[in-house]
Amino acid sequence: MTPEQVRRNHRGPTAGLAPGYAQANLIAVPQDWAYDVLLFTQRNPKPCPVLDVTDVGSTSTVLAGNADLMRDLPRYRIWEHGELKEEPPDASVYWQDDLVAFLIGCSFTFESALKQADVPLRYVEQGRNVPMYVTDRECRPAGRLHGPMVVSMRYIPADLVDTAIRVTARMPAVHGAPVHVGDPRALGIEDLDQPDFGDRTEPHEGDVPVYWACGVTPQAAVMASKPPFAITHAPGHMFVTDVPDTQYQL
Amino acid sequence: MTPEQVRRNHRGPTAGLAPGYAQANLIAVPQDWAYDVLLFTQRNPKPCPVLDVTDVGSTSTVLAGNADLMRDLPRYRIWEHGELKEEPPDASVYWQDDLVAFLIGCSFTFESALKQADVPLRYVEQGRNVPMYVTDRECRPAGRLHGPMVVSMRYIPADLVDTAIRVTARMPAVHGAPVHVGDPRALGIEDLDQPDFGDRTEPHEGDVPVYWACGVTPQAAVMASKPPFAITHAPGHMFVTDVPDTQYQL
Repeated sequence: MTPEQVRRNHRGPTAGLAPGYAQANLIAVPQDWAYDVLLFTQRNPKPCPVLDVTDVGSTSTVLAGNADLMRDLPRYRIWEHGELKEEPPDASVYWQDDLVAFLIGCSFTFESALKQADVPLRYVEQGRNVPMYVTDRECRPAGRLHGPMVVSMRYIPADLVDTAIRVTARMPAVHGAPVHVGDPRALGIEDLDQPDFGDRTEPHEGDVPVYWACGVTPQAAVMASKPPFAITHAPGHMFVTDVPDTQYQL
Repeated sequence: MTPEQVRRNHRGPTAGLAPGYAQANLIAVPQDWAYDVLLFTQRNPKPCPVLDVTDVGSTSTVLAGNADLMRDLPRYRIWEHGELKEEPPDASVYWQDDLVAFLIGCSFTFESALKQADVPLRYVEQGRNVPMYVTDRECRPAGRLHGPMVVSMRYIPADLVDTAIRVTARMPAVHGAPVHVGDPRALGIEDLDQPDFGDRTEPHEGDVPVYWACGVTPQAAVMASKPPFAITHAPGHMFVTDVPDTQYQL
């Protein structure tokens, strides 16, 4: 599928779709909260590398010229005062004129590079959504926004961990190098088989869990900080852009 | 000199001082303009890679815990409605309670890495300030802020241009790879011997001019966009941080 076909027709998780094109996380907030969100992303660049910010009231982005951000993601989350209210496949009836939308780099973007380096992706092989976990690492607060860092986890064969680090370190705009390798308790994760978002993945023998900072982190901040209103993507259900993923490779 | 000694005692250009420590550009604007500046930096990451943003009314930064931003730069520029009013060595009498300060990566930071790679720096050898030029490339506007990109130029021996590109590409937080190599007219620069900021530099035979995006770009935006008030560093007179420059190396 092309990026445009995914945006128009697909309503499930987007890992592995439109290979070669960058994918992005979404968070849209009322203009009154936009500075806090933008400062939060600047202060927490590992989980929140910003790829684009819309002008107030606009639902178009330089990342895909003909896309409409309020319709072209596969699934949204509608938040009120930090509580999840709906998970619709179209956000146009919820969109407000004063929203500013932030597109944040997604680790799905470096998976083509991992595949090219012969690093297997267990969760894709198993037909699942990537597992994500809320950690005990606090982000640096910004104005009214605070909250913990969220990570995505991929099981990587022990002898390919160095390759996975090298490949992803070259792509800081889509989270870059892992934030941790190995023991989940170092991040305050109690049970890898019970992710906070996405699906449980089966490791192969000799696999090591590797953790990347995740663009779901702003949703954890929404839960902790309770802005009156926000629209985000549903975890794993990303905005597929028209930007080649190689553009984010140093 | 240590970074702290430079901050307290030095009042000239800072290239080559406190080697091994990152240096930063400064722009401080009233809170009402802070979102526009932050969005401008996000939309123009090559000239404006943000290293830190202060909270409103604060003059301290995580980049140097004991520094005071209104006193510890060697020279400031005070701007009113886009016009340069003063160039004082201390900005404390001009500072306002509603200012938000942005610290932006400076290309002086990658010069230690260039030296380690045996790339000579002509302007340092010649005891001058780096030459900077306003280009004909427009930045992507953000709210009320717009203006052209400014570049710094270093003459590099032709057979070391690839080394200079490789070394600096690994440091995107301090402008990264050059934006252009060679013909100044491709950037709309008429005469390399007449820089808009800093000093003229003498090339050696076989040198090629190499251009990096420059953190003076926000000052060009101040001139073009005329916010009511702003405080910046004087070009080449940087804020010397306590952060090792290797921290910005991938």
